[in-house]
Amino acid sequence: MSKAKITVFKVGGNVIDDPDLLDDFLISFANYSGRKILIHGGGKKLTQLSNQMGRDVKMIDGRRVTDKDALELALMVYSGLINTNLVSKLQALGCDAIGLSGADGNVVRAKKRLATPIDFGYVGDVIAVNDKTLAKLIEQGLVPVLCALTHDGSGQMLNTNADTIAAEVSAALVASYEVQLIYLFEHAGLLRELSDPDSVIENIDQIGYEKAKEEGIIAAGMIPKMDNAFFALKRGVKQVQIGSSRNLKTSLEISTSLTL
Amino acid sequence: MSKAKITVFKVGGNVIDDPDLLDDFLISFANYSGRKILIHGGGKKLTQLSNQMGRDVKMIDGRRVTDKDALELALMVYSGLINTNLVSKLQALGCDAIGLSGADGNVVRAKKRLATPIDFGYVGDVIAVNDKTLAKLIEQGLVPVLCALTHDGSGQMLNTNADTIAAEVSAALVASYEVQLIYLFEHAGLLRELSDPDSVIENIDQIGYEKAKEEGIIAAGMIPKMDNAFFALKRGVKQVQIGSSRNLKTSLEISTSLTL
Repeated sequence: MSKAKITVFKVGGNVIDDPDLLDDFLISFANYSGRKILIHGGGKKLTQLSNQMGRDVKMIDGRRVTDKDALELALMVYSGLINTNLVSKLQALGCDAIGLSGADGNVVRAKKRLATPIDFGYVGDVIAVNDKTLAKLIEQGLVPVLCALTHDGSGQMLNTNADTIAAEVSAALVASYEVQLIYLFEHAGLLRELSDPDSVIENIDQIGYEKAKEEGIIAAGMIPKMDNAFFALKRGVKQVQIGSSRNLKTSLEISTSLTL
Repeated sequence: MSKAKITVFKVGGNVIDDPDLLDDFLISFANYSGRKILIHGGGKKLTQLSNQMGRDVKMIDGRRVTDKDALELALMVYSGLINTNLVSKLQALGCDAIGLSGADGNVVRAKKRLATPIDFGYVGDVIAVNDKTLAKLIEQGLVPVLCALTHDGSGQMLNTNADTIAAEVSAALVASYEVQLIYLFEHAGLLRELSDPDSVIENIDQIGYEKAKEEGIIAAGMIPKMDNAFFALKRGVKQVQIGSSRNLKTSLEISTSLTL
């Protein structure tokens, strides 16, 4: 028997931060047919709130350090504010959304990253996705909306990259579904020239990706996203696309499709 | 066929605010056998955070006004911070908790209270509990943990009294379960003398309650809780108890039991 199809969407902080873009995306997402999951990033709200509260955002090598205070703010913003608002807006659009952090139903468990060589604080690397609980929620007609927070199974919440959660969740769902993974961000896809929005590379495989990296075509910020995308393909995800939320209609109309 | 039993617990802010009391309660709750739901209040964290952010807490007649900023803080604290931490702690205790606001799975829908005679802002009165979705989550082995936030079905989150949510959820679950409702707060039950912790009134019915109110025995702050409790009984909830989280063992050992 062939597996049912599911689409895992990851939507980036730039969409979360722009009310019009977000509303457009949520309409497209609510109307997108079939089983689906939404995974969302954080946006600028966390930094704004840190500033309002007079807390410094600690950075090492350009990456945020999640100390105890920063984790508390991340819980408040990612789970409390953004996730709850996404869910209530989706409910208003007739989409039976249910917001989840990794602790809810133990859906995403992670391990705190070692403090050496660099201590990034309460940051977790995914070690287990509870695909069975996710599948049960989905089969009862609910649409999981996951924020980028995980737990360690011992009562500690952890901050985890949303692109990675999207790849790990997609990979785990392969056991039960034919999985499609769509990364939505500010561009229409992987661009040959960052200054030219029409220079979308429509198809790229791993060899082409390695070559493009060597040629310096891939922007540094895109590398972790691309690596996550290829990880998902290697774990059996059927299709991975990268593109803009503006182009999401009954399918993602313009995009970069990745193949192994 | 007789209905399965379920216990709905409401735990107050004083337990949430005291780390030792909270840890003890969570162990008792995790070990409590059978189907169960937890509904929690807010505690002092919201006021602390308002102060840290230099926001005034607006009050009318001793009651908090939930303006736009206050609602944002309530989402962050109730759903983001308290609910998420309760869920991750319960998961560590082997209890498969899932955190919910009223918007998640549309479990608690409310109507914004009219602005006249007094405008309390984004405060909602419960109009519908989705007992079917709650029952499906429970029957898949999950333990719902609800915070005191509801939604209006049109994308607006609302602040709602946790005691009321507990009564409304209990009443709605009567359709599928034999329901027991337990309110846990700082006293061992309804006290004949507030200064005497041993003066617990073990049983009270509605006539006794009305009489006790007339005699001024019932503290003003207890009246809404008692009214919610009697509402639940009238709607078919089998048993309602009020007591202290300290006395929760395999059952609530000392308490006030309410009857119609």
